[in-house]
Amino acid sequence: MNDERDVWVREVGTRDGLQSIATVFPTAAKLDWIRLEAAAGVPEIEVGSFVPPKLLPQMADSAEVVRGAKAIAGLRVAALVPNLRGAENAFAAGADQLNYVVSVSEAHSQANVRKSVAQALDEFAAIMEYRRNHPEYAHVRVASGLATAFGCTIAGPVDPADVVRAAERLVELGADELAVADTVGYGNPAQCRRIFAAVLDVAGDIPVGAHFHDTRGLGLANVDAALEVGVRRFDASLAGLGGCPYAPGASGNIVTEDLVFMLEAMGLRTGIDLDGLLAARELMARHLDGEPTHGAFVTAGAPKGFVAASRAA
Amino acid sequence: MNDERDVWVREVGTRDGLQSIATVFPTAAKLDWIRLEAAAGVPEIEVGSFVPPKLLPQMADSAEVVRGAKAIAGLRVAALVPNLRGAENAFAAGADQLNYVVSVSEAHSQANVRKSVAQALDEFAAIMEYRRNHPEYAHVRVASGLATAFGCTIAGPVDPADVVRAAERLVELGADELAVADTVGYGNPAQCRRIFAAVLDVAGDIPVGAHFHDTRGLGLANVDAALEVGVRRFDASLAGLGGCPYAPGASGNIVTEDLVFMLEAMGLRTGIDLDGLLAARELMARHLDGEPTHGAFVTAGAPKGFVAASRAA
Repeated sequence: MNDERDVWVREVGTRDGLQSIATVFPTAAKLDWIRLEAAAGVPEIEVGSFVPPKLLPQMADSAEVVRGAKAIAGLRVAALVPNLRGAENAFAAGADQLNYVVSVSEAHSQANVRKSVAQALDEFAAIMEYRRNHPEYAHVRVASGLATAFGCTIAGPVDPADVVRAAERLVELGADELAVADTVGYGNPAQCRRIFAAVLDVAGDIPVGAHFHDTRGLGLANVDAALEVGVRRFDASLAGLGGCPYAPGASGNIVTEDLVFMLEAMGLRTGIDLDGLLAARELMARHLDGEPTHGAFVTAGAPKGFVAASRAA
Repeated sequence: MNDERDVWVREVGTRDGLQSIATVFPTAAKLDWIRLEAAAGVPEIEVGSFVPPKLLPQMADSAEVVRGAKAIAGLRVAALVPNLRGAENAFAAGADQLNYVVSVSEAHSQANVRKSVAQALDEFAAIMEYRRNHPEYAHVRVASGLATAFGCTIAGPVDPADVVRAAERLVELGADELAVADTVGYGNPAQCRRIFAAVLDVAGDIPVGAHFHDTRGLGLANVDAALEVGVRRFDASLAGLGGCPYAPGASGNIVTEDLVFMLEAMGLRTGIDLDGLLAARELMARHLDGEPTHGAFVTAGAPKGFVAASRAA
């Protein structure tokens, strides 16, 4: 495989996928999954979430998973942190990257974390201050997502100006990376071009990723649109694991292997091997208890004569 | 509904979908389906195929379906014709538009219709000559698809120059419209931009449509790419009916209702009502005998606060 990557694909099924299903994966199963994806060339995996175990028993072993994943050479080990307390635990566990999330929709922010958007941004400031006060964590990247950036199930449409304003504030506070998230699968390609162009503009040199859900089947179309305006980082979930418990059959995040196939077919190097991803998918699926898997590449395979960009001479 | 359309969506499930499944729909069921889609605002439906009934018993009633569909005010009634003989029958049945198909891949053309590409183009010339010699059919549009334009299951990659050359020849021969087809779901967005830009260039004022299969999940991403370079006509199949008998779970054409949702969300008026499409889908699905249906919009519904472009003030 070619080591150069044109696009950075981050696996989030081990967090966003697992937290959305009923089955609780044993720690060893999570680590087997993480090892196979890392072996396939996935450069970064969000391996867990430092939320109270009472809220998400699926994530109770996140510190242990972070420690196990850290043993894998070359892998960037990321973890979701909902607040300063979670961030302290993620720093202590040794995560390479902390991903915080601000809901851009006031209504969603209140419903989800009982904070206003301003208070959620203050919490991010507190995390950044904690890192400044702990030089031993200076090398740890701290990123923030911008949730419900494409609309909100409570408030409906979200003003793109609210997304840009939150992005500006996160940049001021020193975020190492942003991820604009279509948390509920409301986004469309035209909207993606507008929102990502605006956020890239205020982000300057700070990388901006995209986090898409495939709820209405537009996930990969949104990727195409985001690529067009310059986005080069995408979250995805192996087999589209996740989905919404209230919408049977609905997919969760975009499907990692379908995303990688699309990018590689477009001539964009991900550094990820598709066969390796399918092996990880197979292993992961063995632990599911009736939860549906998604994706087209697993069934259809590669076109005849297909050469992945990462394998091209 | 607004009568102006930014994008022309053509339903092909009644042909491409039905010919790919085992169940044979009764003529009345086809016409009920066609009527509901026309009532939803679909401007054109490919209602059948004038192939020998021995080959495709599902299409044996195509003349009757054409005649029944012609009773629907405002609907453009299209039919596939594999050769001059089929064209004669479609003209006689009263179709508004005949869709011929040339396989751009020499290997696929030979395997599919036992003709070279040159011979297939000669057959199109014969159909055009037949129309010239029959002034009573002068108002009937004759279009041609360019099949396997994105790759071929037999030959693998197809040279874009072959697509352009066939398109040029079809234009010379007087085609009223072209449809570039990803017959086997090999296409990706980067390739779409290249191929459609090149074909639009040689087509001049002649409309160029896109016919995508969703075999590898990239159908709507390919639509986004084709839109970007100026394509404004798309084929689709209600509930993604069709699929490949050799790939269980694989979708056929892109899903009409998901396509319409995407376009309307992007601010592009299709003149099609999504609720009306779902009603047609429900009626159609009652006639299936275990064949899978596809699509995300049917499960997820519209985002909160969504206003379709065709319904906007």
